[in-house]
Amino acid sequence: MSAPRVAVYPGSFDPVTRGHEDLIRRSLALADRVVVAVATAGGKTPLFGLEERVALVQAVVKGETRVEVRSFDGLLVDLAKQVGATLIVRGLRAVADFEYEFQMALMNRQLAPGVETVFLAPALEFTYVSSSLVREVARFGGDVSGLVHPAVLETLRKKLRR
Amino acid sequence: MSAPRVAVYPGSFDPVTRGHEDLIRRSLALADRVVVAVATAGGKTPLFGLEERVALVQAVVKGETRVEVRSFDGLLVDLAKQVGATLIVRGLRAVADFEYEFQMALMNRQLAPGVETVFLAPALEFTYVSSSLVREVARFGGDVSGLVHPAVLETLRKKLRR
Amino acid sequence: MSAPRVAVYPGSFDPVTRGHEDLIRRSLALADRVVVAVATAGGKTPLFGLEERVALVQAVVKGETRVEVRSFDGLLVDLAKQVGATLIVRGLRAVADFEYEFQMALMNRQLAPGVETVFLAPALEFTYVSSSLVREVARFGGDVSGLVHPAVLETLRKKLRR
Amino acid sequence: MSAPRVAVYPGSFDPVTRGHEDLIRRSLALADRVVVAVATAGGKTPLFGLEERVALVQAVVKGETRVEVRSFDGLLVDLAKQVGATLIVRGLRAVADFEYEFQMALMNRQLAPGVETVFLAPALEFTYVSSSLVREVARFGGDVSGLVHPAVLETLRKKLRR
Amino acid sequence: MSAPRVAVYPGSFDPVTRGHEDLIRRSLALADRVVVAVATAGGKTPLFGLEERVALVQAVVKGETRVEVRSFDGLLVDLAKQVGATLIVRGLRAVADFEYEFQMALMNRQLAPGVETVFLAPALEFTYVSSSLVREVARFGGDVSGLVHPAVLETLRKKLRR
Amino acid sequence: MSAPRVAVYPGSFDPVTRGHEDLIRRSLALADRVVVAVATAGGKTPLFGLEERVALVQAVVKGETRVEVRSFDGLLVDLAKQVGATLIVRGLRAVADFEYEFQMALMNRQLAPGVETVFLAPALEFTYVSSSLVREVARFGGDVSGLVHPAVLETLRKKLRR
Repeated sequence: MSAPRVAVYPGSFDPVTRGHEDLIRRSLALADRVVVAVATAGGKTPLFGLEERVALVQAVVKGETRVEVRSFDGLLVDLAKQVGATLIVRGLRAVADFEYEFQMALMNRQLAPGVETVFLAPALEFTYVSSSLVREVARFGGDVSGLVHPAVLETLRKKLRR
Repeated sequence: MSAPRVAVYPGSFDPVTRGHEDLIRRSLALADRVVVAVATAGGKTPLFGLEERVALVQAVVKGETRVEVRSFDGLLVDLAKQVGATLIVRGLRAVADFEYEFQMALMNRQLAPGVETVFLAPALEFTYVSSSLVREVARFGGDVSGLVHPAVLETLRKKLRR
Repeated sequence: MSAPRVAVYPGSFDPVTRGHEDLIRRSLALADRVVVAVATAGGKTPLFGLEERVALVQAVVKGETRVEVRSFDGLLVDLAKQVGATLIVRGLRAVADFEYEFQMALMNRQLAPGVETVFLAPALEFTYVSSSLVREVARFGGDVSGLVHPAVLETLRKKLRR
Repeated sequence: MSAPRVAVYPGSFDPVTRGHEDLIRRSLALADRVVVAVATAGGKTPLFGLEERVALVQAVVKGETRVEVRSFDGLLVDLAKQVGATLIVRGLRAVADFEYEFQMALMNRQLAPGVETVFLAPALEFTYVSSSLVREVARFGGDVSGLVHPAVLETLRKKLRR
Repeated sequence: MSAPRVAVYPGSFDPVTRGHEDLIRRSLALADRVVVAVATAGGKTPLFGLEERVALVQAVVKGETRVEVRSFDGLLVDLAKQVGATLIVRGLRAVADFEYEFQMALMNRQLAPGVETVFLAPALEFTYVSSSLVREVARFGGDVSGLVHPAVLETLRKKLRR
Repeated sequence: MSAPRVAVYPGSFDPVTRGHEDLIRRSLALADRVVVAVATAGGKTPLFGLEERVALVQAVVKGETRVEVRSFDGLLVDLAKQVGATLIVRGLRAVADFEYEFQMALMNRQLAPGVETVFLAPALEFTYVSSSLVREVARFGGDVSGLVHPAVLETLRKKLRR
């Protein structure tokens, strides 16, 4: 019997969007277990704190027993080894994504040859959705209800009202 | 017990390069079985005939019991369904690749929602290798021994000598 | 009273897709009249003859009195002058499109400074649709009913059955 | 009689360059009236204050009765609705521009389906000009007299002398 | 005393444009001698024969004693070695150029480590000029007098009149 | 006798990587003398101070008599004139690099027509290496010994230990 395949899906998830949810679902087709790894936001000040971001992802994947959500602060490949992952999953939306992601994948391969980075295309309707765009639109009162989970929408409204 | 994961790795393989070999090996980390699907070259006249191209890939993956090589003529998603594949594997080297591949992935998803396209980065030393470059360099007597398997090298020499 | 704004929307339309239809509709927001200019396919052998391609676009825009469909063979800017157009409309889907289109726009501007090229984004659901992909999928019996108008679908089936 | 076409041309204009002037002129070929919308610089600290940036654009378009300059702080589509605009005009210089602009255009279309984003190519001689490059070169005493309007040049010199 | 630096500037030059002329001039700033290498057009049918293309480049660089024009058929690196060149010069206009050129440069470096490929930016006014665009515009009677040397213009007219 | 060719290779070198070393070596094939120009980091807070960055580059090129290392604060073209350089050397790794570099090259050409920017491809094994990636990996204890010179490695460790 072969060992279960574990995939890590890293990001800052500030906040998690419908695009991220779609990627998590697609990752489940590649692996038996998916660890969503919420990164501390190196340098940048996130809108949501680390715990909040983890909690929002957890709310969004609730009931999906094959998904685990956790924060991490360090090298992604170290986390991958720690959770026994052989795959890192990344979404690709645009050429700019592609080049940065490619550079990271080659670096991570050099640091941990046994961990493979796989790239997935998000669902077409989410190709233009990003956390930063969601924050920007929400900040000015625009409707982002189609772009994030209801749990995120509510938290986002509370956060921006303050 | 879950069904084995099958991946299809399609291409024209005219001829198979060290870059393709690398991708086949990487595909084995994603799936239990990999079907290398050698396409008839729609419109273009390939250097090697379909049977030759299949035979060269077979020579290159010899002994790897989890890899099957076959030709196909039709829609890739039909082949995927036929062999029970849930994954299509594609290598990404450059931005130009990325856009075309992305378009194909979205089209294939629309045609067969249960088949996911995953993109992999080739080994760094093969990022500049392509079948067309191999053919072009070999045609003018350049040394391509580092870019293709010895079996391919020999066949390439015979073909170009004629 | 100002003169009516006329836009030219050029292409080979082999065949016209839902993406083209979307662009024609969007062009009507920019201009009072839109001339869809079906180009003879310089060098390449199209699947549909010039007359067929014109007829298919006409079928697709039927009833839209502000749209005129015609064939052209020559410089686009000459056609633009002939029909009194001050705008050339082009759709942008990908980076590769962008660079070629940009080059053409700068050349056309040099040839006819009074004609401005404007670029539009297609509807999200059509960003991956192209005539060549439609032809390829249809050739192998794939379902393209969501990608082309019913009139095109029928003609495409007849054409490929032969 | 149809309603006049209004276009919004948004940006931070820190400061307005010859490239922006060129785009404003080109916008006038698409619309009866152009509203230049000077954005508050979300997050970043601009070199020129919002009022200064508005005043500089006004100096540059002086006498052009079909152009209005105003500041805005909020969603671009809300401004578009407020001024009755059906067009948003954006210049495209590079691939990096293209992807970000495309993402914004799709988001804005989702927020306001009746407002169309149109992309224009700047005059060739201004393709390499950007506000940030102008600021950087001027800061070190480089000659930017060919890149900005005389009114901007003077203000820029005063600002940097301080 | 060090050996003179020799650069090879390869291309198909079908026909040589003002953009190519500009690159030849810029190459002279990098090397003591520049060999313009006119390639046989592998596969494609050029508008001008190999001898014609060589003759046109010669007409264009006439009087420039540090430039030599010759045809070649084979590997570029073999020609470089033959003429004692340590540099290969290539112009970059667009992202699509960049990726292909990069791939060629890495391949050529592997074939001949002592020959370095250097990339130059063409003069801004020629960034949109290519031989294929010149041929296409000229074929339909468009004015290309600003894009090619008078000697080329005349030959082009004769060729297309036939 | 002609004047020696001088090239400037500018950057922030925070810290100098094996990729930069490779570019310096390649620059020596283009010029008789290479001035490595370490820029003050406009706006951003570098990990290493200006003097440290200069010292690290000097440690790395030690013994290479044709290379000079110096800091600069101002316009690159002014430095080029000051040291008698006719060439500016830049490495190209990715499309994103390319566009920014192209814009800078055109601006610099406008400011100083006699100074030519030349672009080189780094060695394949360094295409994914950047100073920012080195800093990020080293910060989390990842192994960067293959990416920087031993002298840099030691200083990096001391710096991050503090």
